[in-house]
Amino acid sequence: MSALGEDAAPWGPPYLLYLGSATDDLSIKTARGLAYWRPQWCLGQYRSADCAVTLGLPDIDLAQGRAYGARTMVIGVANAGGVMSAEMVTDVIAALEAGLHVVSGLHHKLSEHPDIVAAARSRGCTLFDARLPRPGTPVGTGKPRAGRRLLTVGTDCSVGKMYTALALERSLRERGHPADFRATGQTGILVAGAGIPIDAVVADFISGAAESISPDRTDAGWDLIEGQGSLFHPSFAGVSLGLLHGSQPDALVLCHEPTRRHMRGLVDYPIPDLMTCMEANLAAARLTNPAVKPVGVALNTSHLSEHEARGACDRVGALFGLPCQDPVSMGVEAIVDHLLASFAN
Amino acid sequence: MSALGEDAAPWGPPYLLYLGSATDDLSIKTARGLAYWRPQWCLGQYRSADCAVTLGLPDIDLAQGRAYGARTMVIGVANAGGVMSAEMVTDVIAALEAGLHVVSGLHHKLSEHPDIVAAARSRGCTLFDARLPRPGTPVGTGKPRAGRRLLTVGTDCSVGKMYTALALERSLRERGHPADFRATGQTGILVAGAGIPIDAVVADFISGAAESISPDRTDAGWDLIEGQGSLFHPSFAGVSLGLLHGSQPDALVLCHEPTRRHMRGLVDYPIPDLMTCMEANLAAARLTNPAVKPVGVALNTSHLSEHEARGACDRVGALFGLPCQDPVSMGVEAIVDHLLASFAN
Repeated sequence: MSALGEDAAPWGPPYLLYLGSATDDLSIKTARGLAYWRPQWCLGQYRSADCAVTLGLPDIDLAQGRAYGARTMVIGVANAGGVMSAEMVTDVIAALEAGLHVVSGLHHKLSEHPDIVAAARSRGCTLFDARLPRPGTPVGTGKPRAGRRLLTVGTDCSVGKMYTALALERSLRERGHPADFRATGQTGILVAGAGIPIDAVVADFISGAAESISPDRTDAGWDLIEGQGSLFHPSFAGVSLGLLHGSQPDALVLCHEPTRRHMRGLVDYPIPDLMTCMEANLAAARLTNPAVKPVGVALNTSHLSEHEARGACDRVGALFGLPCQDPVSMGVEAIVDHLLASFAN
Repeated sequence: MSALGEDAAPWGPPYLLYLGSATDDLSIKTARGLAYWRPQWCLGQYRSADCAVTLGLPDIDLAQGRAYGARTMVIGVANAGGVMSAEMVTDVIAALEAGLHVVSGLHHKLSEHPDIVAAARSRGCTLFDARLPRPGTPVGTGKPRAGRRLLTVGTDCSVGKMYTALALERSLRERGHPADFRATGQTGILVAGAGIPIDAVVADFISGAAESISPDRTDAGWDLIEGQGSLFHPSFAGVSLGLLHGSQPDALVLCHEPTRRHMRGLVDYPIPDLMTCMEANLAAARLTNPAVKPVGVALNTSHLSEHEARGACDRVGALFGLPCQDPVSMGVEAIVDHLLASFAN
């Protein structure tokens, strides 16, 4: 399955990562996710003179990108509202005129901008909007499926659910187990080259979309499904619940950022208690998979010292009686050990 | 707020209810809901020769409809998949040519059929698709709002959540309390003339849509919000949870159909236990309104004898220590008594 729902999407790596005039690190999280998880696909970054952030990749322009073999420019930057600035539109058209395909994770769609569409058409280049769900998603059925699935769930948005699922995929593959990351957000879709932007599907089809990205599998491997939002986020919990039901997870990993003071964007909503959050996810997950088990906790400790991070993982691990690690700084080997031991039969 | 999000929608009653070639009663539930709740708006039914069901209204054709003062034809029939048959398209175009506006609750949109759009344009008539969400719905904020809200929740889809909310509106108004039914589905939207089809909004905006249909109110009245789906329906629970969070209900009424054997459309999923279902809804609702209270249970007893219905209500009422009634056959006065007593201050 390609990102286009076809077997051979015309766009693909090598990538030129477009950062434009980005000024804060959070705004380039799509580019950073790609550069971190798929460095072999990323030739360099293309920045405006006033860009204040870097991925640490070589700075190359469109002509250099083409000369080095880039096939696609990725809009790896998001500003408030996900809109395209005039500068960005100009740069996208220049990339198309240089013969590059262009893909984007922005809310504003490349495919809805007439000048961009015209430039793509005249050069025979492809536009891909990672946030645009493909038509034809079915309603969820709740029917049991073959194979095993793990879903990353969270206390909040942006706590490491995608990184955790990708780290689990990498570890399982390194150990020789078939494993596939299943993307549900724009960055994950660009990393995986496939997936469904689950927060952009029509509400009636959330669980159906989750079912369709993780179909029957019969190779004794695992689907590692990227969670979204949180059952405790009042803006987005419906997405999280539909994804949980449709995923029918055999295993859950709870993701958490221990320095977060309140739910993302909502200062009056505290972060839920970890145990309450795990129990709520397990209770809801049992509707479609009564045998669901928690197999670990993933902490994003990027704002803690190494000593503090270790202490936090020890405390949370003891609380749950489960392995607790930061997937980025500590890996996920203990969680994978426990996962495999828990599903040894 | 009109159904179009404007102050004066061009379409409106008096209505001619189109049943087409409907052959089963379930397929005309939109027409039946309108005829039951807004009989004063419904001049008659327009049926094909092979139509096997009736609303008990006068049979009139397009010419008679116009002569009697009909302003709008309502597509009150749904077939599997919500598609428009060729016959229906022909009849819609004939209605437009007769000068009637046309509104529809079907999944297939009037506004996406070129011949229908052309006919409407040439006659200056309006098309309204009740299932098409208006653009501009915001993301939910979880911010407390002024006023009081009641949400009807259910053990399953199609158990009486809309009828219960409408019955509560009618009873409160008859007692002199300001009260407004807030519609979240296509039939409710046609009955109310306003609302948002919550299952058709983009997933990220479910709770935001619920917030926007029940804004601040300062007249000491009640919003009666039409629930959708069930937290225990694996296809649609995400919609139900987002609606629950966005509604911030002060009061819940649980709706149930006691002869239902399994979740609608899913033979392997049993109906949840009533107490479990109420507790799960209360627990989830507390995220955005910690003071939420259950105020009653509404049973759809249409498949029971009067004696059985009375027994079922007595048992369920005793179980919860709350009034339990069938809104259609028994009214909702006991539930309204309890609601008003529970929020007397």
